[in-house]
Amino acid sequence: MAAWYENCSDVKGVLLDISGVLYDSGGDGGIPIPGSIDAVKRLKSSDLQVRFCTNETQITREKLVGKLTKLGFDIEAKEVIAPAPAVCHVIKERGLRPHLLVHPDSLPEYDGIDQSNPNCVVIGDAAEIFSYNNLNTAFPVLMSLEKPVLIALGRGKYYKETDGLKLDVGAYMKALEYSCDCQAEVVGKPSQAFFMSALNHMGVEAKHAIMVGDDIVNDVGGAQKCGMQGLQVRTGKFRPSDENHPEVKPNGYVNNLAQAVDLLLTNRGS
Amino acid sequence: MAAWYENCSDVKGVLLDISGVLYDSGGDGGIPIPGSIDAVKRLKSSDLQVRFCTNETQITREKLVGKLTKLGFDIEAKEVIAPAPAVCHVIKERGLRPHLLVHPDSLPEYDGIDQSNPNCVVIGDAAEIFSYNNLNTAFPVLMSLEKPVLIALGRGKYYKETDGLKLDVGAYMKALEYSCDCQAEVVGKPSQAFFMSALNHMGVEAKHAIMVGDDIVNDVGGAQKCGMQGLQVRTGKFRPSDENHPEVKPNGYVNNLAQAVDLLLTNRGS
Repeated sequence: MAAWYENCSDVKGVLLDISGVLYDSGGDGGIPIPGSIDAVKRLKSSDLQVRFCTNETQITREKLVGKLTKLGFDIEAKEVIAPAPAVCHVIKERGLRPHLLVHPDSLPEYDGIDQSNPNCVVIGDAAEIFSYNNLNTAFPVLMSLEKPVLIALGRGKYYKETDGLKLDVGAYMKALEYSCDCQAEVVGKPSQAFFMSALNHMGVEAKHAIMVGDDIVNDVGGAQKCGMQGLQVRTGKFRPSDENHPEVKPNGYVNNLAQAVDLLLTNRGS
Repeated sequence: MAAWYENCSDVKGVLLDISGVLYDSGGDGGIPIPGSIDAVKRLKSSDLQVRFCTNETQITREKLVGKLTKLGFDIEAKEVIAPAPAVCHVIKERGLRPHLLVHPDSLPEYDGIDQSNPNCVVIGDAAEIFSYNNLNTAFPVLMSLEKPVLIALGRGKYYKETDGLKLDVGAYMKALEYSCDCQAEVVGKPSQAFFMSALNHMGVEAKHAIMVGDDIVNDVGGAQKCGMQGLQVRTGKFRPSDENHPEVKPNGYVNNLAQAVDLLLTNRGS
């Protein structure tokens, strides 16, 4: 079978995951992954459409972009596709009033959302806010509903910070699903609607797009289900066992984003 | 079909759940469920064997018994079957060295257990100790193992305290199972080995024993799978929807322990 980069002449758009691909996040502001700053610059200098497709929900897009800019990345808020705006759209459309179990730094994303007398729970990557007491505040909201509505901003298992692997929102989503006998609706990767909104934003069809991520299931598998190519980087949360994943077979592995961009730009002749 | 109490002449032993059957626990020490103090007294005055079969892992058995005695119950530590001693047995037998994610008040139960260089995680009902940081300390222990060993002291979804429903150990077990791609081994109810040890302790065969609990799955369903009768009380965490549970059909419902003991003692003629 031909390698992914041998058939990339018709690629028109690239979606990049942020954490684990551009940088490793951490309390210290995080550290860029070697070669990624330059790789983003080269991609954006090409004729390819580029968007950043993240499940980041600890901070607002504006703050995230500020952090990445400080690290040296060329990135603008309008290029970032993130779950919070998507969930606000869903909430308004369905007349929901959420109890927000999210990180305080992300709260400005929910300005103007009615949170009185809640009839659903929205759970994001709340990190330290995932205390026993805060979970036990969200839990009775779900239990009081005849049919609990739990909306999760992603379903990641874990991510890598500079000081190690950390539990992601998916772990806490599973905890509430189990105790409330319900199934969460996921907004964010790997939801098809979320990837489609990123493709629409670029004006590129799935068959002409590549997703580059470190999460074998949520980045690579999710993108492939939408008809895109999915590449896994061997940075961030990548683990060697991912290469024997029982369900997801990426179109290719690359050591890092820099290698992905090298192979893509060289082989499509741009 | 005959009611459970019409066929109870050959009952020789009774297992009682504690929280939600004897009392509702809480930060204030808890409150006895009306009629339960007298019901225990009457049971123990009969010729029936009686044991207290609990998944309580927030405190040592000695402290639990002290708390219940203070509330007015006639109960001794040797009558309490709890998960911590059972898990210590498993740990020693298999040469495991646990990272303990348990409530500090229960730590004396693990005296003498080697906790250096851990090769498994034991998770109990740690309540407030279930912080993001503490979960992220246990998580890498599991991720560092080729085949993660997670031992859960019960798999309850929630329990009732005097100020409301609280997430039980099962929620956090599910969170770690999901993020580590592993399946926990459960010591405590509803594990068959745990119920069998309680029956052995009484010297009573399963077919001559009744379990009384407020947890439809872990008390009633678990006991029935071992061949016992299972009664659900309408106290503690009981919810009306339990009466339409898709999998577990109790041998009977009773309004509370007092009613169960009335019906049992009257109908067996003791």
